[in-house]
Amino acid sequence: MLPKRTLMGPGPSDVYPEVLEALARPCIGHLDPAFIAFMDELNELLRGAFLTRNAATLPISAPGSAGMECCLVNLLEPGNTIVIAVNGVFGTRMLEIARRCGADPVAVEFEWGTPVDPDRIDSVLAAHPDAVALAFVHAETSTGVRSDAETLSNLARRHGCLSIVDSVTGLAGIELRVDDWGIDAIYSGTQKCLSAPPGLSPVSFSERAMARVRARATPPQSWFLDLELLTGYWGAGAKRAYHHTAPVNALFGLHEALRILHAEGLEQAWARHARNHARLRDGLEALGLEFLVAPQYRLPQLNAVRVPQGVDEARVRAVLLDRHGLEIGAGLGPLAGRIWRIGLMGASCTEHHVALCLEALGDALGSA
Amino acid sequence: MLPKRTLMGPGPSDVYPEVLEALARPCIGHLDPAFIAFMDELNELLRGAFLTRNAATLPISAPGSAGMECCLVNLLEPGNTIVIAVNGVFGTRMLEIARRCGADPVAVEFEWGTPVDPDRIDSVLAAHPDAVALAFVHAETSTGVRSDAETLSNLARRHGCLSIVDSVTGLAGIELRVDDWGIDAIYSGTQKCLSAPPGLSPVSFSERAMARVRARATPPQSWFLDLELLTGYWGAGAKRAYHHTAPVNALFGLHEALRILHAEGLEQAWARHARNHARLRDGLEALGLEFLVAPQYRLPQLNAVRVPQGVDEARVRAVLLDRHGLEIGAGLGPLAGRIWRIGLMGASCTEHHVALCLEALGDALGSA
Repeated sequence: MLPKRTLMGPGPSDVYPEVLEALARPCIGHLDPAFIAFMDELNELLRGAFLTRNAATLPISAPGSAGMECCLVNLLEPGNTIVIAVNGVFGTRMLEIARRCGADPVAVEFEWGTPVDPDRIDSVLAAHPDAVALAFVHAETSTGVRSDAETLSNLARRHGCLSIVDSVTGLAGIELRVDDWGIDAIYSGTQKCLSAPPGLSPVSFSERAMARVRARATPPQSWFLDLELLTGYWGAGAKRAYHHTAPVNALFGLHEALRILHAEGLEQAWARHARNHARLRDGLEALGLEFLVAPQYRLPQLNAVRVPQGVDEARVRAVLLDRHGLEIGAGLGPLAGRIWRIGLMGASCTEHHVALCLEALGDALGSA
Repeated sequence: MLPKRTLMGPGPSDVYPEVLEALARPCIGHLDPAFIAFMDELNELLRGAFLTRNAATLPISAPGSAGMECCLVNLLEPGNTIVIAVNGVFGTRMLEIARRCGADPVAVEFEWGTPVDPDRIDSVLAAHPDAVALAFVHAETSTGVRSDAETLSNLARRHGCLSIVDSVTGLAGIELRVDDWGIDAIYSGTQKCLSAPPGLSPVSFSERAMARVRARATPPQSWFLDLELLTGYWGAGAKRAYHHTAPVNALFGLHEALRILHAEGLEQAWARHARNHARLRDGLEALGLEFLVAPQYRLPQLNAVRVPQGVDEARVRAVLLDRHGLEIGAGLGPLAGRIWRIGLMGASCTEHHVALCLEALGDALGSA
């Protein structure tokens, strides 16, 4: 049996006890009429979380990076130009996947820890009138930065591009309005602010995006992630057609997590994340710690904190884990060794978690 | 809450209660040292189930069809010739995925309900000396047919090809010896004879297969299914490198299912499937039902039974489901409406299940 931890890293977050119970419900056949009704209900809950009426809203049966790949392989054809904003690990990953699609990605790089600058994106889109899409990360999990998804999606539309948005860490933690903001394709994860286990990737596609998918000259290079087959399986079309076997128990968990979110209310969940972030920020500053990101761009659910001069960052994390059972995250790429990433996501976003983290960090900093 | 069913279709099978409990364990971080040790242990259990020492043995974080795609996208490069045996739905699917890889698949078709004929495969391989791989289905879930994976894998090797084997339904239900039979790439599923929920695909690759992967001129078209990245994440290499976020709780379930298999013993599990199949066969024949498949090619874990003349097959399944809470499967493709598929897989392969099924079928046939 593995040790019990408190999860305050970049995800997974603590899973709600009700979600754990839901995972353990008896399995049912994925073609059972009762399960088909359940799938419809799940997708309706997902639409509520994304604030969308998109018919093509469903959970991909694989983690967030498969959701990313799903968006790109369906919306890109070989030779297409796509503008990709890169301000952390996940923009870099989109670039890599777009290349594997045979597309011609234009990378627009921003310093890690800063947001995507709409003015620069505007110029780049103007310089690439052939671009079919703009892709960017709403909530960069590697740096704790929020970019302005509304402005960027509007820009994409103004330039005749589809917008492809990574909100793996954003969904249910900060404001996100898929329809109002005109987002064309979005993917998320279950192990962040939804507090279900990792393993599924909720996605949603606008009618504009689906029209592009239907107009492809060639089928997408992935059969498993083929959106027309997926929407057929999930019943967005007229007749449900067998594709893969849905991960039944994982979907039980996601359904329960969405039900909890729905009961709290989406705006209330956003407010809770903001409130606990403010508490954590005050406490971290009282410990003498500094944030990587300027205040107006910080993600409340992912706090990137600079490692103080002379502190052994790995040792601090080891003390937190071994002495307090508390997980926080390390830095990635150019930020490895330079920051910690403290998550306040979903079930891990409570006053209790803030207090536990501050106390444990105080202890670890004193003894590391 | 969904109704409780007894699952005797083509999968998912009934999930072991211990596996359901394992799914509900508290989530832990996928980079936690304790979880990394758990991943190593899980893969060692998987090697035991596959009877292999392959270092590259791990569960893909997505269902069986993603395991299929993983094998093909990593082992095929554009323009490669691959010989694919097609005797049911899953051979057809391999053909479709191979095409999307830009490969040049040579389909060798067999009547649905019959096995892959090694002599024909031998001739086709002789006629295509440029073929890089032979792909076939060990246990065809759509028809209940077992093909001779040992002979076919040996043939592939004799012709200088890699063998790619679908054993989604085979693993833990019938004899399967990855190393002894010289299988180069194999994928399976968790929701069949392992009796964990659907959602993961155990795969294993020989050194020969990994050498081919490392020698590719271009990266595989899928980033999510890139084997070098996956084996890096799962620690088959020297240093563990972050790739995606593993589906932690689903892996708890798979680990427990493998532990149960290990405790029973692999050969004992094969024998149990054979024993209960014989019981079910006798009972079905006593009800006047006939098998689709000749005795020597039948899968004990998936019994394809002809729908008797004049019987409304959908009505029979509805009576089984509504009156007895029992799920069996319908036919697919050319066999739709013509057969039922009765699973005896893993936790659903007991004397009790056989008795329940025979009694319920007797009732349903009498009243449908």
